Amino acid sequence: MDHSDLQAARTWQLSERAIKLTSSAIREILKVTERPEVISFAGGLPSPATFPAEEMRAAADRILRDNPAAALQYSATEGYLPLREWVAARHSHGGVKIRASQVLITTGSQQALDLLGKVLISPDSPVLVETPTYLGALQSFSLYEPRYVQMPTDDEGLVPEGLTPQLTERARLLYAIPSFQNPTGRRLPLARREALAAFAKRAPFPVVEDNPYGELDYAGEPLPTLLSMAPEHIVHLGSFSKVLAPGLRVGYIIAPEALHHKLVQAKQATDLHTPSFTQRIVHEVVKDGFLDTHIPKIRALYRSQCEAMHAALARFMPEGVSWNRPEGGMFIWVNLPAHIDAMKLLEAAIAQNVAFVPGAPFFAGEARHNTLRLSFVTVPPAKIDEGVAKLGALIRAQAGAQAGA
Amino acid sequence: MDHSDLQAARTWQLSERAIKLTSSAIREILKVTERPEVISFAGGLPSPATFPAEEMRAAADRILRDNPAAALQYSATEGYLPLREWVAARHSHGGVKIRASQVLITTGSQQALDLLGKVLISPDSPVLVETPTYLGALQSFSLYEPRYVQMPTDDEGLVPEGLTPQLTERARLLYAIPSFQNPTGRRLPLARREALAAFAKRAPFPVVEDNPYGELDYAGEPLPTLLSMAPEHIVHLGSFSKVLAPGLRVGYIIAPEALHHKLVQAKQATDLHTPSFTQRIVHEVVKDGFLDTHIPKIRALYRSQCEAMHAALARFMPEGVSWNRPEGGMFIWVNLPAHIDAMKLLEAAIAQNVAFVPGAPFFAGEARHNTLRLSFVTVPPAKIDEGVAKLGALIRAQAGAQAGA
Repeated sequence: MDHSDLQAARTWQLSERAIKLTSSAIREILKVTERPEVISFAGGLPSPATFPAEEMRAAADRILRDNPAAALQYSATEGYLPLREWVAARHSHGGVKIRASQVLITTGSQQALDLLGKVLISPDSPVLVETPTYLGALQSFSLYEPRYVQMPTDDEGLVPEGLTPQLTERARLLYAIPSFQNPTGRRLPLARREALAAFAKRAPFPVVEDNPYGELDYAGEPLPTLLSMAPEHIVHLGSFSKVLAPGLRVGYIIAPEALHHKLVQAKQATDLHTPSFTQRIVHEVVKDGFLDTHIPKIRALYRSQCEAMHAALARFMPEGVSWNRPEGGMFIWVNLPAHIDAMKLLEAAIAQNVAFVPGAPFFAGEARHNTLRLSFVTVPPAKIDEGVAKLGALIRAQAGAQAGA
Repeated sequence: MDHSDLQAARTWQLSERAIKLTSSAIREILKVTERPEVISFAGGLPSPATFPAEEMRAAADRILRDNPAAALQYSATEGYLPLREWVAARHSHGGVKIRASQVLITTGSQQALDLLGKVLISPDSPVLVETPTYLGALQSFSLYEPRYVQMPTDDEGLVPEGLTPQLTERARLLYAIPSFQNPTGRRLPLARREALAAFAKRAPFPVVEDNPYGELDYAGEPLPTLLSMAPEHIVHLGSFSKVLAPGLRVGYIIAPEALHHKLVQAKQATDLHTPSFTQRIVHEVVKDGFLDTHIPKIRALYRSQCEAMHAALARFMPEGVSWNRPEGGMFIWVNLPAHIDAMKLLEAAIAQNVAFVPGAPFFAGEARHNTLRLSFVTVPPAKIDEGVAKLGALIRAQAGAQAGA
């Protein structure tokens, strides 16, 4: 072929939304974390030690032995009915009754964000997000070209009193991660949950509760979900990625039927349905109470990993660095001295085979560049010590260089 | 909760694109086809008799025994590298070399359509489609609010001479199903493929070749793909749904690297990646040449089913009804006398427990209401006879009623 032909293929015109999609500089830098010598606190990956591989193997075998045609055929967009019923029952207790007709099974929780963007966001629609918030949600919603509005937060998370009429005007949705937020690890206290649920009952737009980490509280005493406080007014996103395994890509949306119906239409156009086989594996594994014994094991592992990281931070971090003590989940949020840029720190850390994620990309608007996220669940404690010690020394050096400048 | 609270949840404002999404009247009617007494020629489902359940069971078992952590963990957005390499090799022959770096694994072929819409279509962008075309593609693209332009077709499919500068002006993509099209079953002849590939080399927009049925030619002599004729200018969509099983939802896009890169970014925001486990199952089943013996079995089954339907049509259809004789695939396209509306015929047929899909929804613009699609792959031949006989009698009655009116 001649050169002008190739030019044509390279200059196909893209949609406005695609032109705005940019490669993350951080993603490029973090590609090196795949090298085995790198101590990575960067990943959002659950520990593979928690994957119930044998249970899944037995489940897959039973399904393909007993009911292969159904597991391998096209199936309903809404999802596998017994799994939808299981999800509804799990979220029903006390006076709260969730109906299977509210449950849509999604190809991971990430797809739930894409479907909500499709169905709720028009170009320039205001979308309310926490400060900071989950980077993947920003990426998902951004394809629908919203205008982000950062909601006020403090060390306990979202501040409901800050949701003034002025701030929330014309909003299409409010996106929150009340339990062990990504990236901060914060859990919204009970009183604020009550205030946010009350807000949801009045708001002319949905409050979205993204809850992948809710059951990973180290004390085994989860706080009530927003869903349980305002079941007809909350859109609740759940996932099996952190309590079973992410590689199956099975999540769900619980929504009032009117919105559920639109989400189903959007999902049909998006991928017809989530794989029949993976949905059935999840159901087969969880249906008889497996999670009741499995989740406590994940909690115990992550608690001890979190303690190891805390001990290392206390031992190796110089003065002027602060961090939180999460009650669950997978992340610790670190504040550096104001003049240290976490992006520059990352470059120096990578050179010493240590990685983390700088905090800035988690902000939808004005960012705090002296923040970073540490994940502690996949690194053995001895390596946690080694990695945090190196970070502490680098911060000390950068702080000293600044002080001496 | 009080009544006004519930009102709020029911009046959440939706995006413009979601408001335009409407429930298909046909979908509602066809829900009855799930009743076992209904003879359904409506489905686009492959025959479950062709699913290699035992091979998949063995593959799933080996994967979860030998490499559970990788099969259950998050994985690369681009897809499982050995599967991408397999896809690239399968499409490389003669002078054509497809690179794994061009291959993106998708959650079924339907997701490929969504990603192409995301990355290429802006509101009001012209999108060129066949007349008629695949309904699911129209649903997918419609979420990105294009302006459809119907391309001229005849009994052999798309007419390349009809692609005038006036018709194709400002188009963002051309969407075609050259082999055993859904809904018509038509296969584009070699000379037209060559003309369309030549057009693709000159066009300032991609020509998308959707190819789920390409290998299902009854004679076992597939025509060359557009991809093989213009490998740097065609976006090729493939799927394992029709040659292995649709319930795994594994498909792929082959695209020039510049577009591939944007599609990967869009996919990451959409569902992070296709399930690691299902990708590995597909690879494990196909990697040693399984399809070489498996696909001929599917061809033989579908050929005999197609012949059964042809014999029934010849026997039971009244004068004035015509249909095509597909050389492969799953569908026959039927033209009724001009005054018979296939939608009304469907209502009468459903009352007699026979179902099909009317042709009108497959047209992006002006529709031909006297057309319908018959799928023949899942109904046993005796039931094909019974169902076609009932349809023939109904058409005869409706034609007679019209003549006598």
